[in-house]
Amino acid sequence: MSEVEEDTQKESEGLSRLTGFSDGVFAIAITLLILNIELPERTGSAAVGVYRVITEWPDILAYVISFLVIGNYWIGHHSVFEDIEYYDRRLLWLNIIYLMFIAFIPFSTALLGDFPGSFPVIVYAGTLALTGIVFAGLWRYAWANGLLDETVDTDQVREITLSILIPSAIFTGSVLVALISARLAMYSWLFLFLADPIQKWLMK
Amino acid sequence: MSEVEEDTQKESEGLSRLTGFSDGVFAIAITLLILNIELPERTGSAAVGVYRVITEWPDILAYVISFLVIGNYWIGHHSVFEDIEYYDRRLLWLNIIYLMFIAFIPFSTALLGDFPGSFPVIVYAGTLALTGIVFAGLWRYAWANGLLDETVDTDQVREITLSILIPSAIFTGSVLVALISARLAMYSWLFLFLADPIQKWLMK
Amino acid sequence: MSEVEEDTQKESEGLSRLTGFSDGVFAIAITLLILNIELPERTGSAAVGVYRVITEWPDILAYVISFLVIGNYWIGHHSVFEDIEYYDRRLLWLNIIYLMFIAFIPFSTALLGDFPGSFPVIVYAGTLALTGIVFAGLWRYAWANGLLDETVDTDQVREITLSILIPSAIFTGSVLVALISARLAMYSWLFLFLADPIQKWLMK
Amino acid sequence: MSEVEEDTQKESEGLSRLTGFSDGVFAIAITLLILNIELPERTGSAAVGVYRVITEWPDILAYVISFLVIGNYWIGHHSVFEDIEYYDRRLLWLNIIYLMFIAFIPFSTALLGDFPGSFPVIVYAGTLALTGIVFAGLWRYAWANGLLDETVDTDQVREITLSILIPSAIFTGSVLVALISARLAMYSWLFLFLADPIQKWLMK
Repeated sequence: MSEVEEDTQKESEGLSRLTGFSDGVFAIAITLLILNIELPERTGSAAVGVYRVITEWPDILAYVISFLVIGNYWIGHHSVFEDIEYYDRRLLWLNIIYLMFIAFIPFSTALLGDFPGSFPVIVYAGTLALTGIVFAGLWRYAWANGLLDETVDTDQVREITLSILIPSAIFTGSVLVALISARLAMYSWLFLFLADPIQKWLMK
Repeated sequence: MSEVEEDTQKESEGLSRLTGFSDGVFAIAITLLILNIELPERTGSAAVGVYRVITEWPDILAYVISFLVIGNYWIGHHSVFEDIEYYDRRLLWLNIIYLMFIAFIPFSTALLGDFPGSFPVIVYAGTLALTGIVFAGLWRYAWANGLLDETVDTDQVREITLSILIPSAIFTGSVLVALISARLAMYSWLFLFLADPIQKWLMK
Repeated sequence: MSEVEEDTQKESEGLSRLTGFSDGVFAIAITLLILNIELPERTGSAAVGVYRVITEWPDILAYVISFLVIGNYWIGHHSVFEDIEYYDRRLLWLNIIYLMFIAFIPFSTALLGDFPGSFPVIVYAGTLALTGIVFAGLWRYAWANGLLDETVDTDQVREITLSILIPSAIFTGSVLVALISARLAMYSWLFLFLADPIQKWLMK
Repeated sequence: MSEVEEDTQKESEGLSRLTGFSDGVFAIAITLLILNIELPERTGSAAVGVYRVITEWPDILAYVISFLVIGNYWIGHHSVFEDIEYYDRRLLWLNIIYLMFIAFIPFSTALLGDFPGSFPVIVYAGTLALTGIVFAGLWRYAWANGLLDETVDTDQVREITLSILIPSAIFTGSVLVALISARLAMYSWLFLFLADPIQKWLMK
């Protein structure tokens, strides 16, 4: 919303603040996940306490899944910004919008651990699909505007684009599956383990 | 409150800790915004759950607006500190007071999402107006005390001052509008999209 | 609790991780302060909402005071670690114990804003007094073990020690005053504004 | 789950983002510990307030213990990554899984401060034992794949492995002891002070 005429100016200094700020948001979003595991109320009886913690297992599973998901996005961000050499104001904004989706993941995760039915599955998979799409947009923007390291070739650009969009496609697909069955949609996330072979096949 | 005779001494080393600490505060304030979206209570019925999440839309809108607002302040901080080469103790203090306003934004946002009437709108717009005024003060202080990079000329100083104060003026105006109508005040924030043309017109 | 024989080995590389980690703890502790301002419950009536926020003023005052206090400690940490060139394992531990007190300040602040009587004032001033004492210990340890920059002379060591211990002495005094009157103890914190003249007088 | 063929490629640039992100997670996890100390409800009577805070002592003890424990892990991470020169994608993942355990410690700590019986002691000691085991795995992986600084010799590798695994062994032992007595298990943690002599004896 501010600063005149700098929109199209590309700079290389100060890129480390972008990654430092992003790492901060990633670190907080990933650590806030633990707050979603509800602490059972204090109780006089040890047995009741054990029982209450054990019934938190969907929260704990959601914690593990989302930690790995955000971790995966962090690795992606890390690897993409190894290839980005310059930035302009629009790239800063794209990165902030991307971080807005990252910071939303703890909320989607809390829904997933707490609610029955398809709705939380749709919100969760939808958030992750959009996160990937925004990130792919950032990556294509950086490429189209000459913000990349000169050693990066078209093949690498395509490879990274695919590595971002294939998981997004899987999550988008699972949103559709969730309209039929929430459980089936969650199982469909296991296709993520096939992301690499799919990518290799598409790169041929 | 401490350290003798260093108040007027200007240094360049250690400026990266100032930006690192500031990035930390920005990252936490922006990520804490998600905690303002209240998680609906667990419920047996999926339909009720969906309904409850959907009625959270003012919280979600407030999340998006505040994320972009804090993001915008971060970009401003980033761009201003590209031009600042030295610091003294007073600049450190001005920066801390500025961060005190940044860290207050999640609270104002929570009010905005939760309460009816003009009061939360006044608190929110007032916080943002003051945040900008403090930041403009920091920028003018740095300029008046020779803490800037030598390549920065008077035009750039004026340009950056305007880019900080125009949004502040819009928020101050909306505080006055809110005395008449909260809704109208919120619509008046759309003038932020005119910040750039206004600035160009003032720079002539 | 671990690592053999490295206790007495001094190193200079990796000091930036110590300051980065410390900046993180400072940034989180200072930003968590906002969570202490309780958000009034949603209400149908705007007037009741305004009233409830206004009655939060002790929380808001506590926020401002603690933000400036933690900010002051951060500036102190920043300035001390400009002078520290090397570190050993004991310095890492002293820094962690120091950060344990910093991270405790949001809790003391919450007590201060919420409770009547002398007890919260004693806890708060006691925390701040101890924080300073630990930090003075860290500083003297670094000096006594040759971990400082060679350009730092005995006068500067004494000056910095005083600048840390004078506020600690004021807070210790206020703990005693609080046994008589909580209000008087809080007013006694205004002596902090005399920290600089007192230090100059002691340095003669 | 993404990126083709980079799994086995080792790089040195960008290692500072790994440590910066890790420091962020450590800083947040260690500072979140304070949120586990429950703030007693507001009360009209000062005496009741004092009483309520004092009865929080198990929470405060848990805070101190966990702060030192996470601090110890941070020092370990710091010292290990002084020796690591390169990274590959698998090391990034091992580090994220390690951080998942670190971020879990505030939850285990909350259980420990709030619940009676052996169960929280088992969860707490189990978390810490596993954290150490994952970290030892990361260290051995880095060593086995030539990611270490060339000056690190086999003795140092063994020394660091022991310094990670001895505390893990003590925590694993205390899980077994907790099946008999929770109190005894907690006392058994005092063996941590013998970690150094045990290590020296094993290194002979």
